[in-house]
Amino acid sequence: MDSHDNKQDGKYSKGLEGIIIGESKKSYIDGERGYLAYSGISIEELAEKSNYEEVCFLLLHDRLPLKDELENFKSELYSYREVPDLTYEIIERTAKYPVHPMTVLRLAVDTLPVYDEETEINTEEANYRKALKLISRIHTITAAIGRALRGEKPIRPKPDLSCAANWLWMHSGKIPSQEEERIFDIVLVIHAEHEINASTFSARVVISSLTDIYSAVSAAIGSLKGSLHGGANEQVMRMLIEEIGTETEIEKFVEKKLKNKEKIPGFGHRVYKNYDPRAAIFKRLAEQIAKKDERVGRWIEIGNKIEKIMIEKLKEKRIYPNVDFYSGIVMYYLGIDIPMFTPIFATGRIIGWVSHILEQLKDNRIYRPRIIYSGEKERKYIPIEMRR
Amino acid sequence: MDSHDNKQDGKYSKGLEGIIIGESKKSYIDGERGYLAYSGISIEELAEKSNYEEVCFLLLHDRLPLKDELENFKSELYSYREVPDLTYEIIERTAKYPVHPMTVLRLAVDTLPVYDEETEINTEEANYRKALKLISRIHTITAAIGRALRGEKPIRPKPDLSCAANWLWMHSGKIPSQEEERIFDIVLVIHAEHEINASTFSARVVISSLTDIYSAVSAAIGSLKGSLHGGANEQVMRMLIEEIGTETEIEKFVEKKLKNKEKIPGFGHRVYKNYDPRAAIFKRLAEQIAKKDERVGRWIEIGNKIEKIMIEKLKEKRIYPNVDFYSGIVMYYLGIDIPMFTPIFATGRIIGWVSHILEQLKDNRIYRPRIIYSGEKERKYIPIEMRR
Repeated sequence: MDSHDNKQDGKYSKGLEGIIIGESKKSYIDGERGYLAYSGISIEELAEKSNYEEVCFLLLHDRLPLKDELENFKSELYSYREVPDLTYEIIERTAKYPVHPMTVLRLAVDTLPVYDEETEINTEEANYRKALKLISRIHTITAAIGRALRGEKPIRPKPDLSCAANWLWMHSGKIPSQEEERIFDIVLVIHAEHEINASTFSARVVISSLTDIYSAVSAAIGSLKGSLHGGANEQVMRMLIEEIGTETEIEKFVEKKLKNKEKIPGFGHRVYKNYDPRAAIFKRLAEQIAKKDERVGRWIEIGNKIEKIMIEKLKEKRIYPNVDFYSGIVMYYLGIDIPMFTPIFATGRIIGWVSHILEQLKDNRIYRPRIIYSGEKERKYIPIEMRR
Repeated sequence: MDSHDNKQDGKYSKGLEGIIIGESKKSYIDGERGYLAYSGISIEELAEKSNYEEVCFLLLHDRLPLKDELENFKSELYSYREVPDLTYEIIERTAKYPVHPMTVLRLAVDTLPVYDEETEINTEEANYRKALKLISRIHTITAAIGRALRGEKPIRPKPDLSCAANWLWMHSGKIPSQEEERIFDIVLVIHAEHEINASTFSARVVISSLTDIYSAVSAAIGSLKGSLHGGANEQVMRMLIEEIGTETEIEKFVEKKLKNKEKIPGFGHRVYKNYDPRAAIFKRLAEQIAKKDERVGRWIEIGNKIEKIMIEKLKEKRIYPNVDFYSGIVMYYLGIDIPMFTPIFATGRIIGWVSHILEQLKDNRIYRPRIIYSGEKERKYIPIEMRR
């Protein structure tokens, strides 16, 4: 097969836009309607009535668990929370360097396969266990990184707390209130899964060579770090705190941005042409929080103003706030520092990644596309003395 | 945009077979003809007349260097050979665990961005430097892993040796003969680049979110580890040593394999429908070595026999030896242990990965394909007590 001999006659879609890579039972997005469902159940219903553990089961098994199934699932999941000593040590030794915490997260996660006696066993059962281990241990790792960034020692997990409560415990050293636990649980649920975005696609591409699950999750973490993927929620908070601050003339601020063709972080989405359902949930949550936190109230006020101006000025473009606009506000309220926002994204999204990886393995074919050779052909090797 | 609303009307090509992802000046494969060229120059010419350093320049700049350019390039490349203490320490502490050395390689490479003050600087110049650092440092890391697997302490790089000689020095503690240096140089050149295979595709997908280069290379290492990608050369040597051993009736051995529909490692390729040009080069090299190494002579004899039987029996399928059949023999001759074959593949391929990464960054669009939702839609959340 010649590099130029292919089904598409030399045409291609940059960034694989519009190209379908296969089938999935994990999530369904209707961008026109502003609708997102995990395994067929809308994110609104899940955020209101479910919890992260149940969503993990749902995404792994494509159905809700029975009562005893959920209990067994939780016991197994919670039993995997401890991480090797080397993992803690690596975090402590590297988090002080001026790199993004996602780099520390990837390095720390990459210590896990060394100590997992099932790393090289690729049966369905072993892979499922590795998926659960990864969910639990990424939680332990991100909490430890959050502390290390402040120069604090890690706090070991508790086996009897929910995922949300355990994370807040490991991060702050305080057992959270029921309200805090509930808010962080919603943060995890909303970040859990979002179809075949760049990090999930990375995970599927990597696992398709039949490497181990750790390698695929590590690739997803590396992808999520990129400024075109995770990271927008950090920019939102920096804009609110550093750029806008006590500024009251929001309209002028937005107009100046638009005039200079600068992007306003937290607005617009390639898929959603209506209100991002995740943004709507976070907004309602932030509005509740605002009743007792003045700063949050002020940020919502700013958000509403920007939203109004954007919708008026860019009517045809249908630009609405996306998940990143209000999520940062909610995380900040929970005492999570801005550099930790993308690691928190990963802490929720780990379930989406491992679910897609296990799904890929069930009906795998290695991803091996083609690329058109656009360089000079049939060049001769010219000895170095004769080159000009 | 609805998950089902797309340009291909619900059809897709599994594993993205035949789908073009873009354009590249790195390599050109003509599978019918059994032809491979890097930046337009055939692999045969390069293996005979060039060397790894020059091939690195060629793949990075899409042209051969002038004399002084090559000298400057080498000085810069060689100056990056030292790795942080933590990198050596991690190798020593983890190589003894029963995981594949590729897992140790990925972990060790992931320590590098922590100590690179340019990790988060994404200018073209900084990215180019990071590419050179990665080439040099992966060499240092794989040599140290090879030693650690035998319980030996690492040997630091020498700044004045070629890439090939320096690697053999760091691996064995002896300055190699000119012949050994030349053989290993060819190993590196032949593994340097191979279009958009799964690991290179992984690297391009990961970098497309505009994450750092280290994240993309780490993903490629994770992909290469998979049994459908790297690793076939290990199976070849295991077959030659453990399965065939002193067996003389090769024909019966092959017939039994074919009858049981077992694959014979090192034969056949998705793209090459003629002799893999890389296999031809390695075969010639092995034939030269055979003159003074009896085992290599015996293995070539077996290879020739298998080749003859396969071509006769599977005429229509056009199955020929691929790069993995003879490369293992050559590496084994150089004193490289079988588990190190895939890390050696990575030691050569690093230049292909970083060249593709830099090329992707020059004209980037994030990879964000679609996937068809095939699960149940519009499911209701059923409270746990009511589930059956």
